[in-house]
Amino acid sequence: MRPFDDSDLSRDGKVLILAYDHGLEHGPVDFEDVPETMDPERVWDVATHDAVTAFAVQKGIAEAYADDYPDVNLLLKLNGTSNLWMGEPDSAVNCSVDYAAEVGAGAVGFTLYGGSNHEVEMAEEFRDIQEDAREHDLPVVMWSYPRGQGVKDDTSPSTIAYAARQALELGADIAKVKYPGSPDAMAHAVDAAGPTKVVMSGGSKTSDEAFLSSVKDAIDAGAVGLAVGRNVFQREEPEKMLDALEAVIYEEASVDAALEHL
Amino acid sequence: MRPFDDSDLSRDGKVLILAYDHGLEHGPVDFEDVPETMDPERVWDVATHDAVTAFAVQKGIAEAYADDYPDVNLLLKLNGTSNLWMGEPDSAVNCSVDYAAEVGAGAVGFTLYGGSNHEVEMAEEFRDIQEDAREHDLPVVMWSYPRGQGVKDDTSPSTIAYAARQALELGADIAKVKYPGSPDAMAHAVDAAGPTKVVMSGGSKTSDEAFLSSVKDAIDAGAVGLAVGRNVFQREEPEKMLDALEAVIYEEASVDAALEHL
Amino acid sequence: MRPFDDSDLSRDGKVLILAYDHGLEHGPVDFEDVPETMDPERVWDVATHDAVTAFAVQKGIAEAYADDYPDVNLLLKLNGTSNLWMGEPDSAVNCSVDYAAEVGAGAVGFTLYGGSNHEVEMAEEFRDIQEDAREHDLPVVMWSYPRGQGVKDDTSPSTIAYAARQALELGADIAKVKYPGSPDAMAHAVDAAGPTKVVMSGGSKTSDEAFLSSVKDAIDAGAVGLAVGRNVFQREEPEKMLDALEAVIYEEASVDAALEHL
Amino acid sequence: MRPFDDSDLSRDGKVLILAYDHGLEHGPVDFEDVPETMDPERVWDVATHDAVTAFAVQKGIAEAYADDYPDVNLLLKLNGTSNLWMGEPDSAVNCSVDYAAEVGAGAVGFTLYGGSNHEVEMAEEFRDIQEDAREHDLPVVMWSYPRGQGVKDDTSPSTIAYAARQALELGADIAKVKYPGSPDAMAHAVDAAGPTKVVMSGGSKTSDEAFLSSVKDAIDAGAVGLAVGRNVFQREEPEKMLDALEAVIYEEASVDAALEHL
Amino acid sequence: MRPFDDSDLSRDGKVLILAYDHGLEHGPVDFEDVPETMDPERVWDVATHDAVTAFAVQKGIAEAYADDYPDVNLLLKLNGTSNLWMGEPDSAVNCSVDYAAEVGAGAVGFTLYGGSNHEVEMAEEFRDIQEDAREHDLPVVMWSYPRGQGVKDDTSPSTIAYAARQALELGADIAKVKYPGSPDAMAHAVDAAGPTKVVMSGGSKTSDEAFLSSVKDAIDAGAVGLAVGRNVFQREEPEKMLDALEAVIYEEASVDAALEHL
Repeated sequence: MRPFDDSDLSRDGKVLILAYDHGLEHGPVDFEDVPETMDPERVWDVATHDAVTAFAVQKGIAEAYADDYPDVNLLLKLNGTSNLWMGEPDSAVNCSVDYAAEVGAGAVGFTLYGGSNHEVEMAEEFRDIQEDAREHDLPVVMWSYPRGQGVKDDTSPSTIAYAARQALELGADIAKVKYPGSPDAMAHAVDAAGPTKVVMSGGSKTSDEAFLSSVKDAIDAGAVGLAVGRNVFQREEPEKMLDALEAVIYEEASVDAALEHL
Repeated sequence: MRPFDDSDLSRDGKVLILAYDHGLEHGPVDFEDVPETMDPERVWDVATHDAVTAFAVQKGIAEAYADDYPDVNLLLKLNGTSNLWMGEPDSAVNCSVDYAAEVGAGAVGFTLYGGSNHEVEMAEEFRDIQEDAREHDLPVVMWSYPRGQGVKDDTSPSTIAYAARQALELGADIAKVKYPGSPDAMAHAVDAAGPTKVVMSGGSKTSDEAFLSSVKDAIDAGAVGLAVGRNVFQREEPEKMLDALEAVIYEEASVDAALEHL
Repeated sequence: MRPFDDSDLSRDGKVLILAYDHGLEHGPVDFEDVPETMDPERVWDVATHDAVTAFAVQKGIAEAYADDYPDVNLLLKLNGTSNLWMGEPDSAVNCSVDYAAEVGAGAVGFTLYGGSNHEVEMAEEFRDIQEDAREHDLPVVMWSYPRGQGVKDDTSPSTIAYAARQALELGADIAKVKYPGSPDAMAHAVDAAGPTKVVMSGGSKTSDEAFLSSVKDAIDAGAVGLAVGRNVFQREEPEKMLDALEAVIYEEASVDAALEHL
Repeated sequence: MRPFDDSDLSRDGKVLILAYDHGLEHGPVDFEDVPETMDPERVWDVATHDAVTAFAVQKGIAEAYADDYPDVNLLLKLNGTSNLWMGEPDSAVNCSVDYAAEVGAGAVGFTLYGGSNHEVEMAEEFRDIQEDAREHDLPVVMWSYPRGQGVKDDTSPSTIAYAARQALELGADIAKVKYPGSPDAMAHAVDAAGPTKVVMSGGSKTSDEAFLSSVKDAIDAGAVGLAVGRNVFQREEPEKMLDALEAVIYEEASVDAALEHL
Repeated sequence: MRPFDDSDLSRDGKVLILAYDHGLEHGPVDFEDVPETMDPERVWDVATHDAVTAFAVQKGIAEAYADDYPDVNLLLKLNGTSNLWMGEPDSAVNCSVDYAAEVGAGAVGFTLYGGSNHEVEMAEEFRDIQEDAREHDLPVVMWSYPRGQGVKDDTSPSTIAYAARQALELGADIAKVKYPGSPDAMAHAVDAAGPTKVVMSGGSKTSDEAFLSSVKDAIDAGAVGLAVGRNVFQREEPEKMLDALEAVIYEEASVDAALEHL
């Protein structure tokens, strides 16, 4: 019943999700450094790179462009909320699975804030979404982000391992988790997820070498890949960074070899 | 899937929404200056002007008159609340999309108060409405009005740009936003909205020239038009103001040329 | 779509609603002065008078007697709550429209407490009820009673005009409002309601002459009639008061002429 | 539409409900005095007595035994809650009407806590249950128990009369109310209930004579019968007490005559 | 209607549930002592032992492995929540009964926190689940765990007896309760559950002999078996402990005889 392997999300079992929902979650301020990235079309173009196995966007950006990019594997992010709102972490379900399928999604995404006072409600929303997604044979990616009143350290090894386990127990095919600070901790989270695949979220925005090293570490620790946003599309030449990531994720290249693409 | 261009909302890609839901949102006090405007029929008559591409009203006013005005493009405003109530910003969904279609709506409208403690709930109501509207091929206009506990300045450039982006990400066809104070800020909001069209809400009630100038500025900044209420129907000769707006919005007239209609 | 004119609620465009839901809203204490009125059958008998165009009761009293009174036009009051409960104004929806139709209702009624913290929720309940009623071609009467945290004076002219306008905007066919203190204020409320008809609620329990004068004033101000309870059925000879009201409401009689019936 | 007379609840228009939901409402502590009554089978056996026109139990006890007792008229109590929970009075709906019908119920029961902060919510649950019960032609018994923040004295004559009236107005066929302290007060409650039948709840646990006298008083005041639990099944010879109650309720026996059964 | 006896949950009327939802309820920290048990496959292997009549897991672990273990009787635990969240006891419903059936469940499980401020809501969720399970002929196991604001001592004899009774009254086939401290108290709980079977939850993690003695005591007190997790799968040779439990539960062996398996 786990549709990951046969889906377009997987390229030889590995994954690179290009995420572009910053406009909803953080607002246009996230595009200030590279103003052209405010235009969804520019980022859809980036998403056509072979290294990208899924492009994660909200409903509005999906329905406006999906037909123009038949070769991009659409990961429709089903929930999300602006940061204008400042309450205990929660996220609105902005798109139904049925509509996501109609728009052409090849996978769906959902954020769970474990530890939030809204955890129970969000988990029940996830239940419906996960079961609807099974009906459509759509893989389900959980942004598993412990956060809120009950969570002291949202990137500690034990928190990240728990987040990965929640994704498994609740029926996600892929757990998107933050980097827990060390390869060992990432390996522990991968263990906790069992048959659910783990992708690293983001990675710190440092030098090219540091970024690629952290990706390499995550892959070596058992993660199947990366979900990345600004670290790719806000570079002057995002294709080159995708070439480098392709080498690290799919071709087992060393960081030094990957750096030659930049 | 975006039904704007082929709809009656668009006249050569431009928009003029005449809004008349003040009776619910503010009460009859809004009609005091020009008491005749309390009578919906008078304002429906104004809405027959060629410059008006949509007339925005609540359900009760729609069903009472729509059959008598087949040439007016009805924009049924689906939510709204009285200001007798004084809680954190929220808005009741007063009409279903199915019923709006039955009444003859050519488009639907919905207010989202980003930043309110009810944002998550309102966004989920919007989800259902937007998907139902797609079934009926009805364009969706979002009154995107950040307001509430989380919002310090509801017309700052960054707030308005965020409001426009929310409309895009959540799947609105048109974002109705307040004027953010300058043409540059409006252009920024238009950029943030991407393929979602932007209309300016209201405009300050100053002199004719100042009003038309602000509309002209908005159009020049990329907005497709205006949503206006009292600035039109509460004038002695609303048709003349509509003539002037028609010149500015659809005919690229200068403010001076437009003023000749008054 | 507005079913008022062709319905039994209207007698030559005028209305007299006999209301009998005091047992739920206030309890048996309301029947103490005239204990026989505790028995629904006595009041159903009164409702057979030709002057009465609708008899407003809750579900239980409707289903127990409606079949025995085929000539009484049943107005099923769909919501209502005891005054044992003392929270911010709200009202339980005690009957569905489908069931009201099955019981034989010729119209339905609903209380909206504008200004209450439950206004949004109540308005959404009203939405469903109004649209269901349209399916059954049942006129909808809104008891439009601003009340609660946001309302300082629930019978001021501006409050009553707002209440009448809410009924229009939300799609009620008839607005039942309290008397705002003067004929001018009532005329203002009638204006605010536009095509929605206005009936005066109750009227002060003073002398016969004062009562009939207030009804006459309301009619002259444009109201289509009256909704009345104890002022009729708790008189020794309720039929005589109905004769007098018939003269005032339907026959344009003077108060003096009407008083001759008593 | 009122299915009482033709139902098994009625024996010549009179009623004796044996209630056995103490295990949920109060816990096993209620069975301590007569431990054998913890076993549902023992009490089902008692319920086979001819005097009992309905046996009121929760879903679990209904489905486990109903097939074995085809001659017992099952009154499925649809809501109920443990007293482990200590909030403002509320009650969980533990069984749907459809399932009650499937299990073989001949009637359904529902507790309404008038005056509780949950009154509105409970009344709306009752609406659905009452209308579903009408579909199945099942009589509806309301445990009408004012209780909670708004209620000062839950057995005063005015409170009990209000409780009886609520049952009528909301559409219950039978109102189960507490004894309001005097025959006159009970007669007042019976009046308030109109066509809804009234049964007395429990009765004080005093001597046999006092108990039977209170039942006799209630019957004489117009109540159609009694709902009783421990006063019957926790006696050494419950059948004898049922013989005595049968004499008082159905045979208009005097208390003295009834006492001869004991 | 009680499907227990004919189901795979029962082996000669006795039960041994191996529970493995610690990853959701407590997080990976529960696997630290025996890290291999983080891998679901290892524990599924243990569940193939003849002594185990049901294996209790959450949805994600069920759907990932159930097809590979057709001989393991799957008990899908339908609700559960992480302990990252720290509010008044509640539990998210993570799986529908329909989906559980589709995944191949032979029984379903549900936690009820009697006494919690969420008791009413949880009981209503249980209602739907229990009735859906009846449609699928799936036995229902209630983890009946009083906990929360209203509960002072969650393992006192009276609390455990109440918990067992709640399971009966609400329609569970099996009540999973904590050990109330003595064989007499367990016998009392078994009495309270009537036709609902009782299984002991866990048992203290002490010596082999103490553990087996407590199981023996529970069986002798009338419990039909045990639900156990870490006490089995976190041993070096879990099969040997299962051999010992098999002897105690199904073969009426003495503790000494059972100890020979270890």
